[in-house]
Amino acid sequence: MYNKDIILLFGGKNMNLLIKNILLPNGESTVNTFICVSNGIIEAIGEMPEGFVADETLDGNGMLAIPAFVNAHTHDYMTVLRGIADDLPFMKWLFEGVMPREDKMTKEQAYWSSLLGCAEMIRCGTGTFCDMHLFGGASAQAAVDCGMRACVSRGLVGSEGGQRRIDEQLAEIEEFKGYENISFMLAPHAIYTCDKEFLLKVSAEAKRLNLGINTHLAESVTEFEDCMKANGCTPTEYMYNLGIFENKTIAAHCIQLTDNDIEILAKCGVSVASNPKSNLKLGNGIAPVYALDKAGVNVCLGTDSTASNNSLNMFSELNYCALLQKGKLGDSTAIPAEKAFEFATINGAKAIGIEKLGRIEKGWKADITLLDLNVPNMIPFRNPYSMICYCADGSEVDSVILNGRVVMKNKKLLTIDEEQLYYNIRKMAEVI
Amino acid sequence: MYNKDIILLFGGKNMNLLIKNILLPNGESTVNTFICVSNGIIEAIGEMPEGFVADETLDGNGMLAIPAFVNAHTHDYMTVLRGIADDLPFMKWLFEGVMPREDKMTKEQAYWSSLLGCAEMIRCGTGTFCDMHLFGGASAQAAVDCGMRACVSRGLVGSEGGQRRIDEQLAEIEEFKGYENISFMLAPHAIYTCDKEFLLKVSAEAKRLNLGINTHLAESVTEFEDCMKANGCTPTEYMYNLGIFENKTIAAHCIQLTDNDIEILAKCGVSVASNPKSNLKLGNGIAPVYALDKAGVNVCLGTDSTASNNSLNMFSELNYCALLQKGKLGDSTAIPAEKAFEFATINGAKAIGIEKLGRIEKGWKADITLLDLNVPNMIPFRNPYSMICYCADGSEVDSVILNGRVVMKNKKLLTIDEEQLYYNIRKMAEVI
Repeated sequence: MYNKDIILLFGGKNMNLLIKNILLPNGESTVNTFICVSNGIIEAIGEMPEGFVADETLDGNGMLAIPAFVNAHTHDYMTVLRGIADDLPFMKWLFEGVMPREDKMTKEQAYWSSLLGCAEMIRCGTGTFCDMHLFGGASAQAAVDCGMRACVSRGLVGSEGGQRRIDEQLAEIEEFKGYENISFMLAPHAIYTCDKEFLLKVSAEAKRLNLGINTHLAESVTEFEDCMKANGCTPTEYMYNLGIFENKTIAAHCIQLTDNDIEILAKCGVSVASNPKSNLKLGNGIAPVYALDKAGVNVCLGTDSTASNNSLNMFSELNYCALLQKGKLGDSTAIPAEKAFEFATINGAKAIGIEKLGRIEKGWKADITLLDLNVPNMIPFRNPYSMICYCADGSEVDSVILNGRVVMKNKKLLTIDEEQLYYNIRKMAEVI
Repeated sequence: MYNKDIILLFGGKNMNLLIKNILLPNGESTVNTFICVSNGIIEAIGEMPEGFVADETLDGNGMLAIPAFVNAHTHDYMTVLRGIADDLPFMKWLFEGVMPREDKMTKEQAYWSSLLGCAEMIRCGTGTFCDMHLFGGASAQAAVDCGMRACVSRGLVGSEGGQRRIDEQLAEIEEFKGYENISFMLAPHAIYTCDKEFLLKVSAEAKRLNLGINTHLAESVTEFEDCMKANGCTPTEYMYNLGIFENKTIAAHCIQLTDNDIEILAKCGVSVASNPKSNLKLGNGIAPVYALDKAGVNVCLGTDSTASNNSLNMFSELNYCALLQKGKLGDSTAIPAEKAFEFATINGAKAIGIEKLGRIEKGWKADITLLDLNVPNMIPFRNPYSMICYCADGSEVDSVILNGRVVMKNKKLLTIDEEQLYYNIRKMAEVI
């Protein structure tokens, strides 16, 4: 659809890449070492495998390597709607800001909008995103074109038109069969946009296809109260009672939770994708992330879309997550930096079921971000997790390696023609 | 003390500067225009004054000009303590992390540490800071050397040693007499570190010298409860009863406030410097910024020090301020972007009593930040205040003009030798 030539030009994953002279987190300090990557996998750290000849070498001098982030909840096609309806009541935001524009959007526009999101995510050190979309193939193609990993799902609203949307999802799965960086879930949008029968239908379909479920859950007080009134139980209990959580599930937001809800989520192995900035901005509050983590829930982090954030910067989400729990609980020890870092990396990978992603370790996937430490906000450099969580803002990202391929080098994106992209987006923004 | 030669080299304020081809916020949109600066003042916008010949021209193509931020509360000498004691209980943070290191610090170390803070602040578009320090002259000299404005005050703890500290403040005022970018307040540290007699003494001294008061107020639950127990009134009522607020006052934090406290602050014209990130990180909660603003209090924003934040990035404080009030109040319309922007600019200038600072208008001080909009997180560009508050992260800052002098150009600091600075800080961090 876009620039497959460029991808081939810059080499695929069948390369040997050497990252020399690089700092890695080592407990509360760092160690200076080198990383050998082969076939998209970290083959060795600090030792040279026999016969390893580097096709490409990155000099990491003065830089820290961290796993690329996993953005566990976003709607990438909406990136062009950045700032379209700020500081408005939720209903105005949705019905006058977002929805009329979504209605007008074409699949090609959704592709460019998704690619803008990819450019922003890579620039801030994100390698993988979990996407709920409206336009089959748009975000998946953008991810393929720029070399990101994506777990995509078509937002399923039911019952009316529900089957058509499921069919679109099945077609997308068929279209991207064989793209190893693209995976799928089924996404019943929420309990307030899907009736009971439709939820059961999607759940059965997920079982049939052996796919996970990606949904919004317990986002607002309204959703919680409406559900209590209509069903006599909480949104979480409602989904649990329907058996939705028998599928591998990632639930976004999860703000309005009772103690029993938290127990259910933990017991069923539901991953919670918290979106701290979006939740504040839309007036929905602060999720009980500390309690969820303590109960054993796999907590991960997402940006949500740029219509409610308005950026896709995971450094910022990390920072918000750690600070909000401290402030809310009156406890400066709640959610320490390394915990928030796990939420943004390994936990996100677990949530979408990608194995050996989210750590820099031998045998793990080579999704690596290099941070330039020679900037005032990273000096002096102390505990690396603390620096990442409390000092970095994303502008430190110098280079990004995804699946063993260098997609950003010395602050320049290699798999996206930014000039063309921004031109297209600006033209599109005039009419959307 | 450091690099006065460099400052002379790059020209003082007696220059004519033309910023051409620049976008300015214009309601919900922008206008493309040019700015003429003479003698540190914005002489004209969009019209060429008679006889104006530019000594220097900046091409603002693709950039937005905004007033440089006013950081209304920080402790600049502590910048080297960045990340020294994260995720610890408050008492451990203070007594094991911060205080032993402050005790060891020399004035020269405090200077370099302050200059590091200045480098970080300029890089994120801040032009002025309100500083409470321990080392007379260190932060003032750093500000002079790099061209920032600073309102400095020696933190006054009393009674023991109290008079010595006041004398140090008087000596600093004497030392920097005639530096037009340096102004002073007196800083009784807090009600829990100053006894009643000392507070009254400092207040009298402030009246004698016609200086404002800079203090910490109502930061923690402990401070509030202890004051209620000891004095039968709130911290705000206590200060009010002592007549402290008869002086022009800037009070940092102000989290634990009753309705009556808010009325007192409004009635007395006390400015509140809110520090949203520091307040969360130390587990102190969320200040009632919306209520303060509604009551007519002059709210401004600060970063606090890097020991409790851990960055000096005002873009981030803006974002936190606007989002936290929305999330806390469950109201997505609370503290709209332009309001938060005023907190970070004009209101900060008002708080420290600098006239005609904080807006880009004819006749106002030429403290101007240029933002590069050609980055994915600023595309598409819509309402400028919304973009600044919800999308920018500080990395967009391309150039900074302070008092009519270009101190940062094309991402390069012109008045600070960064290489030397970072070398010194890293050496210092090994022993501190």
